[in-house]
Amino acid sequence: MSTRTLFLLPGDGIGPEAMAEVVKIIDHMNTDAGAGFVTDTGLVGGSAYDAHGAAISDADMAKAMAADAVLFGAVGGPKWDDVPYEARPEAGLLRLRKDMQLFANLRPAICYPALSAASSLKPELVEGLDILIVRELTGGVYFGEPKEIIDLGNGQKRGIDTQVYDTYEIERIAGVAFELARTRSNRVCSMEKRNVMKSGVLWNQVVTASHKEKYSDVQLDHMLADAGGMQLVRQPKQFDVIVTDNLFGDMLSDVASMLTGSLGMLPSASLGAPDETTGKRKAMYEPVHGSAPDIAGRGIANPIAMIASFAMCLRYSFNMIAEADRLEKAIANVLDQGIRTGDIMAPGARQVGTNEMGDAILAEF
Amino acid sequence: MSTRTLFLLPGDGIGPEAMAEVVKIIDHMNTDAGAGFVTDTGLVGGSAYDAHGAAISDADMAKAMAADAVLFGAVGGPKWDDVPYEARPEAGLLRLRKDMQLFANLRPAICYPALSAASSLKPELVEGLDILIVRELTGGVYFGEPKEIIDLGNGQKRGIDTQVYDTYEIERIAGVAFELARTRSNRVCSMEKRNVMKSGVLWNQVVTASHKEKYSDVQLDHMLADAGGMQLVRQPKQFDVIVTDNLFGDMLSDVASMLTGSLGMLPSASLGAPDETTGKRKAMYEPVHGSAPDIAGRGIANPIAMIASFAMCLRYSFNMIAEADRLEKAIANVLDQGIRTGDIMAPGARQVGTNEMGDAILAEF
Ligand SMILES: CC(C)[C@H](C(=O)O)[C@@H](O)C(=O)O
Ligand SMILES: CC(C)[C@H](C(=O)O)[C@@H](O)C(=O)O
Repeated sequence: MSTRTLFLLPGDGIGPEAMAEVVKIIDHMNTDAGAGFVTDTGLVGGSAYDAHGAAISDADMAKAMAADAVLFGAVGGPKWDDVPYEARPEAGLLRLRKDMQLFANLRPAICYPALSAASSLKPELVEGLDILIVRELTGGVYFGEPKEIIDLGNGQKRGIDTQVYDTYEIERIAGVAFELARTRSNRVCSMEKRNVMKSGVLWNQVVTASHKEKYSDVQLDHMLADAGGMQLVRQPKQFDVIVTDNLFGDMLSDVASMLTGSLGMLPSASLGAPDETTGKRKAMYEPVHGSAPDIAGRGIANPIAMIASFAMCLRYSFNMIAEADRLEKAIANVLDQGIRTGDIMAPGARQVGTNEMGDAILAEF
Repeated sequence: MSTRTLFLLPGDGIGPEAMAEVVKIIDHMNTDAGAGFVTDTGLVGGSAYDAHGAAISDADMAKAMAADAVLFGAVGGPKWDDVPYEARPEAGLLRLRKDMQLFANLRPAICYPALSAASSLKPELVEGLDILIVRELTGGVYFGEPKEIIDLGNGQKRGIDTQVYDTYEIERIAGVAFELARTRSNRVCSMEKRNVMKSGVLWNQVVTASHKEKYSDVQLDHMLADAGGMQLVRQPKQFDVIVTDNLFGDMLSDVASMLTGSLGMLPSASLGAPDETTGKRKAMYEPVHGSAPDIAGRGIANPIAMIASFAMCLRYSFNMIAEADRLEKAIANVLDQGIRTGDIMAPGARQVGTNEMGDAILAEF
């Protein structure tokens, strides 16, 4: 039996509560199925800042780099609104993404059948929705230099950010999107603003060339990112896999997650490139939702996104496909039984807390 | 009676058909009410490229600069997909915005009562929706330098765009948003990504400072742009005025327009600063929709967005408030009567072409 190392970064707000429910599942898998997970826990975000003045310490960064996979909760909250920019909670998340070179962010937007009525869209538009957004995560305007505020004198300042993409960055994310499309409905829609941005022109060219060279069996469409946002709201089921850059991916995946009625339930995976010798890829799994400081500590947060993120971890980091499927099925079953946390409460359903939701899923698993 | 000069740039695709319906209204106002509009017509986009190899000629640019207001149709189409980047149809639009210094783009997202069922959102979420997006239009990543593709050798290229905002640019767009909020529900929500972008940090600081100094009677909120996209889909009626940068404004206004069920019906105004001596501001009015090459030339396009753009022109460029109100009311009345173009057709309504729609609105005006 192999050892599987997991580094847990629960973070701030509801992060620790949600993570506790995943720990139950890990413990269960170790005890019942000898899964051999070895966990260690660190600090990230505001809680890391409080402990040692940075949004993640070098020691915890090293542990994240060494682990088979990182599970990440959520960061941020009003308490840290005024910490120095370099130490703000998000800086911990951004450093993890960058230093681990997690260039591929997979954000499924699925509509759990039991929740289709909870969408703000008409149910017929979202029932059965299953989109995968593949977002580039280590490039673009998030990390490009110069990134600064310059004092121009005369009371004027200048804020600068730089959007940069190199061919290889676009090629590798496109490759991930095409490969994943092959395991799904075999369609990729690439989104950029080539009518305004030179990085968009290059993006479009490289995706088109990759397609032609290696993935011509996959259907490829291109859409301007603004039109893409529109179409996500208008007719979301037209999409299978969407591939886009870091900033557009941020915007579009938030819009997509909202369509499902399952906001607060959606997981994500952030993956690096396979190691040339071992084939292993660095990986981090995190809910799409934030730290929800307003409800933190009250035991009412929905742990499903965190648990579903662990299911992605089983699938992508450990190739435990059967277990991942079972865990996802357990979530769907619990929802079908009408068990709900407050955020997804519906007439006639039974409202439970974080703990009970975790237990119910574990019981079905 | 004063002379009012209008420069018409119908552009490509359905632009000319839609513009023809506005011309009817202009003629009517001249004949019946001695409005004194003097019009001239130029070329923009693909049609300008076909005529003289640029997306707008210097001569037409000069006319646009000299006119009291410009009415713009739409640009682009597959015919011009492969023209050189600098001459692509959008370049004409971008040059107009930049050279005329039209920094304030006003994009109302309203839901015509007769059309609330056409939204992909549940009717109760959009009924009565009335949002105004104030988008910065001459700065940010649209125009920042460097903007280029560099050949790095080894088959690698680098695409670069630059997001730049100076204090004065943020201040003046915030001022427009606050002033407009005072004429509405007195609330402004400013959106940026200050957690990732330095320009977002500056944006947030400058909007906050303007508010404190000059507009503290207006309610100001801040939202991260990704969360803003989510909230637009979740609970759009929470917003009154949204102020945001060029790229976020592009994305968010497309999402917002889709909410209304009135896509293809929404107008926009792009305004410059008031001239220091005359008080006049340069202005351009254009539909939010594109050139719809697939239906161009068939007489079936919906001219309402173009007509509603002219209503904004009456309001903002000529202070003809009563006329603007009447024209907007005429549009609503025609919709209430169940007269529809194909794009907004509904069971029991009467389907008409571009021409008849224009005539019906004129008859109500
Ligand atoms: C917290 C923030 C830095 C982050 C981002 O912008 O990428 C978040 O919005 C996300 O989508 O994961
Ligand atoms: C046509 C294009 C250049 C333009 C933009 O990106 O600004 C359009 O999408 C818009 O919103 O007016």
